[in-house]
Amino acid sequence: MTQKKRFVLASRPEGMPTQDNFELKTEELEAPQDGEISVETLYLSVDPYMRGRMNDAKSYSKPYEIGGTLGGGSIGRVIESRHASRKVGDIVLGGWGWQTHATVSGDQVAPVDPDLAPIQTALGVLGMTGLTAYFGLLDIGQPKAGETVVVSGAGGAVGMIVGQIAKIKGARVVGISGSEEKNRYLSEELGFDAVVNYKTESLGEALAAACPDGVDVYFDNVGGEVTDAVFELLNSNARIPLCGQISLYNVAKKEPGPRFLPQLLTRTALVKGFLVGQYQDRYSEAIPEMAGWLKEGKLKYRENIIEGFERTPEAFLGLFSGDNLGKQLVKA
Amino acid sequence: MTQKKRFVLASRPEGMPTQDNFELKTEELEAPQDGEISVETLYLSVDPYMRGRMNDAKSYSKPYEIGGTLGGGSIGRVIESRHASRKVGDIVLGGWGWQTHATVSGDQVAPVDPDLAPIQTALGVLGMTGLTAYFGLLDIGQPKAGETVVVSGAGGAVGMIVGQIAKIKGARVVGISGSEEKNRYLSEELGFDAVVNYKTESLGEALAAACPDGVDVYFDNVGGEVTDAVFELLNSNARIPLCGQISLYNVAKKEPGPRFLPQLLTRTALVKGFLVGQYQDRYSEAIPEMAGWLKEGKLKYRENIIEGFERTPEAFLGLFSGDNLGKQLVKA
Repeated sequence: MTQKKRFVLASRPEGMPTQDNFELKTEELEAPQDGEISVETLYLSVDPYMRGRMNDAKSYSKPYEIGGTLGGGSIGRVIESRHASRKVGDIVLGGWGWQTHATVSGDQVAPVDPDLAPIQTALGVLGMTGLTAYFGLLDIGQPKAGETVVVSGAGGAVGMIVGQIAKIKGARVVGISGSEEKNRYLSEELGFDAVVNYKTESLGEALAAACPDGVDVYFDNVGGEVTDAVFELLNSNARIPLCGQISLYNVAKKEPGPRFLPQLLTRTALVKGFLVGQYQDRYSEAIPEMAGWLKEGKLKYRENIIEGFERTPEAFLGLFSGDNLGKQLVKA
Repeated sequence: MTQKKRFVLASRPEGMPTQDNFELKTEELEAPQDGEISVETLYLSVDPYMRGRMNDAKSYSKPYEIGGTLGGGSIGRVIESRHASRKVGDIVLGGWGWQTHATVSGDQVAPVDPDLAPIQTALGVLGMTGLTAYFGLLDIGQPKAGETVVVSGAGGAVGMIVGQIAKIKGARVVGISGSEEKNRYLSEELGFDAVVNYKTESLGEALAAACPDGVDVYFDNVGGEVTDAVFELLNSNARIPLCGQISLYNVAKKEPGPRFLPQLLTRTALVKGFLVGQYQDRYSEAIPEMAGWLKEGKLKYRENIIEGFERTPEAFLGLFSGDNLGKQLVKA
């Protein structure tokens, strides 16, 4: 019998999560029923949105249950199949999350073509991460050539794709991160027009210098004081795709901030929270376009791969240290 | 010679404006040149947005200049004309603002048909006020039948029209104001489904009771703590047309408030500041529709008319006391 390991939510965190919020369980892998497949996990994704699901709060994604597996995107190889069109050896993408093995409906996984790109890109630039950047920026942000696009969390998985797509669309791109290494990469490798380090620079001044014509699109991954500073520079009719608020996810006691509805009003600005799943009908237009940009070298991606399934919580917790450059994955 | 009186901005207010910020001047009315007309003011509009124009700040509308006339919507009778299609005696709508008489380009006024509705409605329900309600609610708010629409400043000129249009569209309408008299009018005369008095009730509890199914559309005229309370109740995909922030206009020292981008994110909500002028191309579709609702009795309006041009500053300052019910006008 195959043993499967999985991480379950042991307790809900107050503020910053710790290893204690997770519990590793070892169990027998269920045999597939008709229509099901068993998979062996190859890569799994850890993402900031998972922090929200650890709370028991009204949100766009369902809270994890105490004792339940931490769900999320995973890529695996089919090891047993009772589904008509999934064969043993196929590489598939699914939502079974933090497990070394799983038995799931064959209809609820998507095939991954290993000849198109490295398979783990189906979790990153050609997966939810890339799609989040693509739709948030293009559908809500709608950058025009010559406009200034600012992205916070610019060295993160989504942020670095946002900046590159904005460059493809002819915008001037300003990235904000908290690391010199990230900022060097964004400038030198990805062609960002300007970068700001929110940890070492005077944020307001550095941003004003980086955005002499104001801000037309602000793709927000972080919230908090970084966002406060960007909001001071919004141009008329600015668009703000709201993708994440990572700086606030682990704050146990909410601190107030400046009231900025008056600014949004006087600049006739748009703020829109979104969920990539709202664009599901249009994935099939986005993925080939992004795959084309990858092939042409216009779109680059960075991965940070931790090896060893049991280090999944560590990989997840690392998302909040501000150190990870690009997409954080676990190789199981 | 005709004498004209006008109010100019004497000084910029810090916080709440006072009579001292305005200065009355008496001058000779200029004779019209080719293409110009002279008008005698019949009614003029005072509106909360004018407070913003008294500041010297980046905004959607140009700041008033010190020593310059306070601009705004006015209705007058043509008393002299050197314009081909404006005749003496015509009633016209223009932007000459706080003046008893003015000489302006005949191209920059619009004719008002006294047979359609009382002429002063061209400043109110069939003018900028009504159009603001119409486009903010229908274009940004997009209420659907059965949804809950909350409007703050519900007893104000824009708010009471918003609520009635939302009722026409089949929504459940909740109005927030600070006066029992206003709330009685909203419930009894305009058919609002529920009303909340933010001054006498515990806002969070009263709102939650008034909105058992949450809030789908929040038309915001006031901002501040009223808005904070409504934001707690937003449903997924809520839409928030941002029309005014009157509670904050006269606050000299900005106080912080709760950070609500996380809520907008998890509810995938939309916030959009707007300016009625952005919909200029569509006025001709909106005015006949609203005139039709007026005729059918589905849309009612209330006016608060102060008589005497010299009381214009008093009428304007009254907007911030929370006492005015409906559209505030001055009869010159």
